Amino acid sequence: MRLALGISYDGRPYQGWQSQPSGQTVQDHLERALSQFAAQPVGTVCAGRTDAGVHGLMQVVHFDTFLAREPFSWVRGTNRYLPADIAVQWAQPVPDAFHSRASAISRRYAYLLLESAVRPSLEAGRAGWVFRSLDGNAVREAAALLLGQHDFTSFRAAQCQAKSPVKTLRRVEVSRRGAYWRFDFEADAFLHHMIRNIMGCLVAVGQGLHPPAWISEVLAARSRDAAAPTFAPDGLYFLGPVYESRWNLPDRTPAYDWLP
Amino acid sequence: MRLALGISYDGRPYQGWQSQPSGQTVQDHLERALSQFAAQPVGTVCAGRTDAGVHGLMQVVHFDTFLAREPFSWVRGTNRYLPADIAVQWAQPVPDAFHSRASAISRRYAYLLLESAVRPSLEAGRAGWVFRSLDGNAVREAAALLLGQHDFTSFRAAQCQAKSPVKTLRRVEVSRRGAYWRFDFEADAFLHHMIRNIMGCLVAVGQGLHPPAWISEVLAARSRDAAAPTFAPDGLYFLGPVYESRWNLPDRTPAYDWLP
Repeated sequence: MRLALGISYDGRPYQGWQSQPSGQTVQDHLERALSQFAAQPVGTVCAGRTDAGVHGLMQVVHFDTFLAREPFSWVRGTNRYLPADIAVQWAQPVPDAFHSRASAISRRYAYLLLESAVRPSLEAGRAGWVFRSLDGNAVREAAALLLGQHDFTSFRAAQCQAKSPVKTLRRVEVSRRGAYWRFDFEADAFLHHMIRNIMGCLVAVGQGLHPPAWISEVLAARSRDAAAPTFAPDGLYFLGPVYESRWNLPDRTPAYDWLP
Repeated sequence: MRLALGISYDGRPYQGWQSQPSGQTVQDHLERALSQFAAQPVGTVCAGRTDAGVHGLMQVVHFDTFLAREPFSWVRGTNRYLPADIAVQWAQPVPDAFHSRASAISRRYAYLLLESAVRPSLEAGRAGWVFRSLDGNAVREAAALLLGQHDFTSFRAAQCQAKSPVKTLRRVEVSRRGAYWRFDFEADAFLHHMIRNIMGCLVAVGQGLHPPAWISEVLAARSRDAAAPTFAPDGLYFLGPVYESRWNLPDRTPAYDWLP
């Protein structure tokens, strides 16, 4: 039987999603907890790996098991063995044809950015920070230039393992709530550090260091050197993958509502 | 010269606001940082002490100093010596007649409560949690019975040092955003654990353990035994004191917008 799980986590205390020899990643904690509950080794495949410090509101994994348990038993049972800042949100049986990564038709991320003369405090590690004000119109104009299919080499980390740098950015939305800017991104897939590199460029445009049209030059350069420095992971949230409706999976979790 | 400061902090890592021999309270950290910046001992008086685990969005303190510095130098200079989850948000000279505690005409708090079958994860320590659903109408009906001047002995912790248990609750508002309930409270002052004890009772009513009118019985009993158990500090935020407009102090900080 194949099972899909939705998982939320605080990315700060962990060395990213993907399993490491240190055993201190979110995947390591999840697989240890699943294996304890199942009393047998469980390995998982995820929809999108997140970097160290990046948070997950609805990561999705799948795994195969012969264990017949009620779906909610997996949720409650696994959560008992997980640290307080990681929680399985839902569990659902899926056909064997479902694959958390391959079946995802797009991925959604949000970046939360505090604009304030003063650094974050209780939101430290949960929001990026700029102390100079952003010009929202310039940011939106620049963001719109990234929409569609492009070679995103300029926004790609050297250690990126993706086969192709060509991705389709389907949505970028910039909204504001009080002192917080929120950037919503959706693409078929993202390259390593792609959103943090885009954020670095959008912030540079928003602060008047470059005109919005500069973003097109950065794209066209197909060189990491053309772009601004990688922005902090602090405000980056993996909202989760999007699947076709035929899989009948939840498209959000209660943790979604936590984001301002 | 008297100076007022607005301060925001994550309450989780600290043993409450008030200075302790351990030196691990928010006041201890603030006074150490102020003293380092000022290169002389600085003692502060706050608007409202918060318990261990309770967060501050705009605590206000005052202190006297002979040091002539630009107000924003105090902000930036003190923040350099503070832990990442405590930050001075503003500094402002005030007349000697101003007193952070005595001049406050009311205090505002918010309680954030997650309603979900699954425990919190990335919002752990930042939100209270109920796994059974709340009846919002019953909660609002019960909350309304607490409005006005009452003897709040039933909601008072044994160790409370207030001179009188009679307080005036001016506002209770219950709102919802997705899976989160938010309770807003404003009173002239609050007794020790008063909001957490009120929350315990409102949740009991919301889950149908008691009818809304039970709140009036609890009030009338003037006995801690009449009320529900003290609710967790996790979701409690001190929004800050309210002062007369003649003091010209900010009435919110950017940290306010962090709260869902």
